[in-house]
Amino acid sequence: MYKEFDFCEVSQELLQQLQKGAFLTVKSGNKVNTMTIAWGSLGYMWNRPVFTAMVRYSRYTYELIKDASEFTVSFPLKGQLDRTLSVCGTKSGRDIDKFKECSLTLKEGVSTETPIIDDCDLHLECRIVYSQEMNAEKLDGKIKGSSYPEGNYHVFYFGEIVKVYRKEVWV
Amino acid sequence: MYKEFDFCEVSQELLQQLQKGAFLTVKSGNKVNTMTIAWGSLGYMWNRPVFTAMVRYSRYTYELIKDASEFTVSFPLKGQLDRTLSVCGTKSGRDIDKFKECSLTLKEGVSTETPIIDDCDLHLECRIVYSQEMNAEKLDGKIKGSSYPEGNYHVFYFGEIVKVYRKEVWV
Repeated sequence: MYKEFDFCEVSQELLQQLQKGAFLTVKSGNKVNTMTIAWGSLGYMWNRPVFTAMVRYSRYTYELIKDASEFTVSFPLKGQLDRTLSVCGTKSGRDIDKFKECSLTLKEGVSTETPIIDDCDLHLECRIVYSQEMNAEKLDGKIKGSSYPEGNYHVFYFGEIVKVYRKEVWV
Repeated sequence: MYKEFDFCEVSQELLQQLQKGAFLTVKSGNKVNTMTIAWGSLGYMWNRPVFTAMVRYSRYTYELIKDASEFTVSFPLKGQLDRTLSVCGTKSGRDIDKFKECSLTLKEGVSTETPIIDDCDLHLECRIVYSQEMNAEKLDGKIKGSSYPEGNYHVFYFGEIVKVYRKEVWV
């Protein structure tokens, strides 16, 4: 059973967990991959709730998301996947099947063809409405040095949040 | 008296109020202006909390922020400035002094030279670490038609949140 929420209601938990790690899942054709993200943004743009994800060119996820129209973000809120977050942030989907390797359960999205990770507690389903490659020219010099020493920049993916839900807790 | 907060703790109130309106204040040289914003994003990027503001080229605020290194965002949480939000969203700082016209009180920022609006309850002080002009090419067609019929696009200003605080309530 899943219960729907407004994006504002879950914002505190979401932003707190994001800093510890969440799963960005993408699908292109019959290929599915997930990667750990710790950066992103939650907002309201163009009269709709939006989650902005950041993906570096070097990522296998980039190869999939660049042709995709959706993504999902799944947040494990109870520390149950700390080890898995670490694996999915360091290994590449080019080399391993992360879902099999980490025993993650994919579940069909409610509104997206892209699945969510059912082992998590809170989920966003997003439709990509805008994307943009970073332009280093206007970036703070300190950030450029610390986050992009090799020029491996991010692409921003702005996803309209079409569904926010969590596993309902039966007490 | 002001009390500091973590950006996550205030995220729900902030995102809810943003949709009703908040004040984006900028300073360039000795010119100060504020405008009403209803769109924006709160997140964690480059290992720091970030508020992303959107400013259209046509705005007087754009003339100031394009040369600025900071901005502040002030949120009136009790409906006390609903009329003022409407004025500051429709009138231009080119034509009127919004602070005088609306009897708004500017107060020095704690960490920024840009002031905050003291009539509000919750404040963000931000240092611009990145900015980027929108590129319509990758924008959803529906949004392009509804939000930019005249091609008056936004520039994104990514501000590192250096301070989050609110007026302490004495009970």
